[in-house]
Amino acid sequence: MRAWHFVGTHKPFERVDIEEPTAGPGNVVIDVKAAGLCHSDVGILEDEKWLANMKELPVVPGHETAGVISEVGEGVTDWKVGDRVAVWPMLGQGYSVNGAWEDRSEVSTETLVAIPDDVSFAQAAAATDAGMTSVGALTTAGVEKGMKVGIIGFGGLGQIGARVAHLRGAEVYVAEINESAWDRAREAGAVKVAKSITEFADVELDVIIDYAGFGVTTSDALDTVKSSGGGRVVQVGMGKLETTIDTYGLILGRKQLHGSAGGSKEDIEETMRYMASGDLTPVLSEIDFEQIPDGIQQLIDGTAVGRLVAKVTD
Amino acid sequence: MRAWHFVGTHKPFERVDIEEPTAGPGNVVIDVKAAGLCHSDVGILEDEKWLANMKELPVVPGHETAGVISEVGEGVTDWKVGDRVAVWPMLGQGYSVNGAWEDRSEVSTETLVAIPDDVSFAQAAAATDAGMTSVGALTTAGVEKGMKVGIIGFGGLGQIGARVAHLRGAEVYVAEINESAWDRAREAGAVKVAKSITEFADVELDVIIDYAGFGVTTSDALDTVKSSGGGRVVQVGMGKLETTIDTYGLILGRKQLHGSAGGSKEDIEETMRYMASGDLTPVLSEIDFEQIPDGIQQLIDGTAVGRLVAKVTD
Repeated sequence: MRAWHFVGTHKPFERVDIEEPTAGPGNVVIDVKAAGLCHSDVGILEDEKWLANMKELPVVPGHETAGVISEVGEGVTDWKVGDRVAVWPMLGQGYSVNGAWEDRSEVSTETLVAIPDDVSFAQAAAATDAGMTSVGALTTAGVEKGMKVGIIGFGGLGQIGARVAHLRGAEVYVAEINESAWDRAREAGAVKVAKSITEFADVELDVIIDYAGFGVTTSDALDTVKSSGGGRVVQVGMGKLETTIDTYGLILGRKQLHGSAGGSKEDIEETMRYMASGDLTPVLSEIDFEQIPDGIQQLIDGTAVGRLVAKVTD
Repeated sequence: MRAWHFVGTHKPFERVDIEEPTAGPGNVVIDVKAAGLCHSDVGILEDEKWLANMKELPVVPGHETAGVISEVGEGVTDWKVGDRVAVWPMLGQGYSVNGAWEDRSEVSTETLVAIPDDVSFAQAAAATDAGMTSVGALTTAGVEKGMKVGIIGFGGLGQIGARVAHLRGAEVYVAEINESAWDRAREAGAVKVAKSITEFADVELDVIIDYAGFGVTTSDALDTVKSSGGGRVVQVGMGKLETTIDTYGLILGRKQLHGSAGGSKEDIEETMRYMASGDLTPVLSEIDFEQIPDGIQQLIDGTAVGRLVAKVTD
């Protein structure tokens, strides 16, 4: 069957033909219908740090998987052939075990999340990591009705984070450097949009979620979040891998900085509920399975529009 | 009556004679018996940033107050003349309102904490800020029985933090650069002592409290705290006012950094309970009221032994 292989940092992904998996005990095999592309897939090409998450190479990348169960292993009772499923990607898919960029994928039933009828495979794929990570950060931040929430970055993750924060009943303020995204941010429910989060210094934001993470965005967020105690910045974006922060303001304002990575199955389910109701419609671009390297190049060049999802099998 | 005045940054404290306060409605006047000296009292001399906390100058510094009520104002029913009291310093004592370095001090009953019989005035003074801030950080960190707790800095605050963490039932690891303090750290209950917190990287510490705050101590703490999610660093010390942190580790390890300043009346009460039982005996050095500037110089020179407390009236 068809697959892509990651063979090492600074080396292109290789298109290979590998043996089909069979479903081991407690596992299922999924006919992959849609597989997402993510900035982390660019990361593994460019930064050796990611090798620490991998057991052996080559490995099939991709951690956004949606498809249909085509085989169930011994002892599997809760799932059956034909079920439409998305894969919770926190058990190493695309890093320590083979991921989504292959025709058929073997996964543990622990990872399975049912796809609601009104959600497409492409949407479901985007719900697994882009959705889970965006919504997981809201969960880490404790976003709920009535809170004032700042969102930094209205890209792939930020658009979902801003929208779901609004749907949870929060008052949302978006900081996005690219003015061409401002109208979409307002449509998503933002009450105000600006270039920098520091322009909301008067708002006394309860939490700020930094989906960009360019160092200065983190420190700006800590400077801007409310200083009356318990103001919380949640860091998700990894645009730059370090930041210099003002500890004086952190201490006297009794502020908090939380790292957030991934999320829970519940975060994926919440994302898909909003997709099913039509309240959440993140921009997706479908590409062909064979064009995954072109998609990666779009991510490198910053020309990708919305979340890229590769169509694997019909 | 006698008092010291802070008149401005980079200017020496001035010894003045000012009018005695009387107890306004809801307030009491305290005959000050003991008044602590703190690194923040050096801070106000050296750094203009502190002026933001002050309404007008001159102001009487000092935010560690213990004494005996000598007058009660209109409407005060819960407190009476002769009560031994310490002052919860979170309402601006020594910054926005006159503080402890005066013979008699007017404070709101909102700030009063009763001193147990077996606690001296000098101990009670040290319990208000040094105690409250140390124990408040443990409260922010959620330190409880069975947790693995790292303590950075075994100075005035760290010695109390380490001891109370041990008394709460935690397994305590102390990082202190000055080896002459190691024996005292072990006596306080530390299971291991080292020069740097990074030497405890294998321990998977649940929380680390940084009572030093020299920038690198904060980032070392974030690198060292457990990376399995929810590991928490609490920043108290302000040795240096900024730090550069690794956001990659913060995000993937789902770690947290919390600023902690001050604490609650309950934190003061917990401190004094341990003092009353004899379980907590922080090193204190008593100096004369007239020698406060010498005490400040000891703090600047790093020659102060334990917490400095000025004896005000007999």
